[in-house]
Amino acid sequence: MCSPRVMGKVREELSRRRMLGMVGVAVAAGVASRLPASAQQATPMAATPGTLNLALGSYTQVQDLTHTITPTTPLYPGYPQPEIEPLRTFAENGFYANLLTYGEHTGTHMDAPAHFVEGAPFANELPVEQFFAPLAVIDISERAAGDPDAQLMPDDILAWEDEHGALPAGAFVAMNAGWDVRIDDPEAFINMSDDVLHFPGFHPDATALLIDERDVTGIGVDTLSLDYGAATEFATHVTLLQAGKYGLECIAGLANVPAAGGLIVVGGPKFMNASGGPSRVMALF
Amino acid sequence: MCSPRVMGKVREELSRRRMLGMVGVAVAAGVASRLPASAQQATPMAATPGTLNLALGSYTQVQDLTHTITPTTPLYPGYPQPEIEPLRTFAENGFYANLLTYGEHTGTHMDAPAHFVEGAPFANELPVEQFFAPLAVIDISERAAGDPDAQLMPDDILAWEDEHGALPAGAFVAMNAGWDVRIDDPEAFINMSDDVLHFPGFHPDATALLIDERDVTGIGVDTLSLDYGAATEFATHVTLLQAGKYGLECIAGLANVPAAGGLIVVGGPKFMNASGGPSRVMALF
Repeated sequence: MCSPRVMGKVREELSRRRMLGMVGVAVAAGVASRLPASAQQATPMAATPGTLNLALGSYTQVQDLTHTITPTTPLYPGYPQPEIEPLRTFAENGFYANLLTYGEHTGTHMDAPAHFVEGAPFANELPVEQFFAPLAVIDISERAAGDPDAQLMPDDILAWEDEHGALPAGAFVAMNAGWDVRIDDPEAFINMSDDVLHFPGFHPDATALLIDERDVTGIGVDTLSLDYGAATEFATHVTLLQAGKYGLECIAGLANVPAAGGLIVVGGPKFMNASGGPSRVMALF
Repeated sequence: MCSPRVMGKVREELSRRRMLGMVGVAVAAGVASRLPASAQQATPMAATPGTLNLALGSYTQVQDLTHTITPTTPLYPGYPQPEIEPLRTFAENGFYANLLTYGEHTGTHMDAPAHFVEGAPFANELPVEQFFAPLAVIDISERAAGDPDAQLMPDDILAWEDEHGALPAGAFVAMNAGWDVRIDDPEAFINMSDDVLHFPGFHPDATALLIDERDVTGIGVDTLSLDYGAATEFATHVTLLQAGKYGLECIAGLANVPAAGGLIVVGGPKFMNASGGPSRVMALF
């Protein structure tokens, strides 16, 4: 008999292989033409200043949106747990430092276009202008409390706009499913039963709406994956990352920031050829 | 015969042991009383919003101040080179991700108080309010070009203030020694000869002035260490970190930001018990 973890890994690999076929079709159908111009040109290295595409507001509060990464941080099944080992100690060296080993998709982290699309930008290549964006928080926590398979639907976006006005240009749209409070209980955060994960995510139709009709900077979730847990084809990942946008997973503290009017600040990873990675995410409001 | 790297490691350990003695004395003399109140209280977890201690300006430009970390990133002698290994590949898995292994003091990174002071805050415990600060860049690149042992002196701070006015409250003070352009030539960046490192840093007297008389949020350098390369007692580290402040090392791109009027944004690390770690550092101006 396999443990849930092993079963999960097998399931993940099977699902991802199915997804691979889909990506292949999409690439053949012309992914390159959908990527923004910056991704089709030479690598944007951000060596010189870039211009912010937004007017900064007058913020007085800051909220950390980042979970602390520990050896027991909940991860997508099959992913290795992070290791934090002493590299220098006060007793031996007079000062203190650790050696870290982890997969890029650990903790509050970024999914870069290169995570799913060959030839698309790595996390370290994203222009830092994209790391500051008007933050829209769409709260589906009430629905998610009753249904862990809840998805953020196009109607949720329209309802947010009814209340707060049109999404600002280049917004970052975050789903608050109330999931972050489970972070210290990995089993509840991963929430697997009968070999299927159960946690909320963005429905692919909502993702397509945000990209095709709202031109967002990116989207984020407080769960393990942009796609909801029961997804088998990862269509939200594919739709978002093919468009050259980035995602954030395992965001914390969204309940403490306003639904509209804030600014997200993304301290994204800068390792070479990064598919994504742990990011320090904060909100000003 | 030992290689320069081995010699460096031995030298480093010897130096740090000497420093350990010094830290011991300082701790006995009352480090705790010098730490800010937040560091003496329970861990500040930033689970709820904090109030910014500054008025944000009207910024239009953003500059990345972060080097890309690669397997050949220059490091303090004796430190392990980072490893970036495939964890998931398009060929095998249909998507892409890496496994990372590195020491916390790699690339553009933070030194938290806990790096040198037992019981002082870890990087993950620093309130995010401290990650937004008025940025003052003090340029000693002309002097450093002629003298790699140049240090940022109290007179450099006073000269900056003569030109730009008093340092703002809670400023982050960065030394621009013009060193970041050496990043792709590790030998030139480390710059060791006769077993002594030669690169610029903050003189301990300048550090003490900034802490005791200007109450800075932190200080940073574009070289490998807050202390200049030839330092044997790391007095700048000790002075800064005992005061509960943080430092940033290996900053990039300081020549592209104004000496005054900008804002530093620090995407600091959030691994458990972090002595510091790679940080995404940016400037708005």
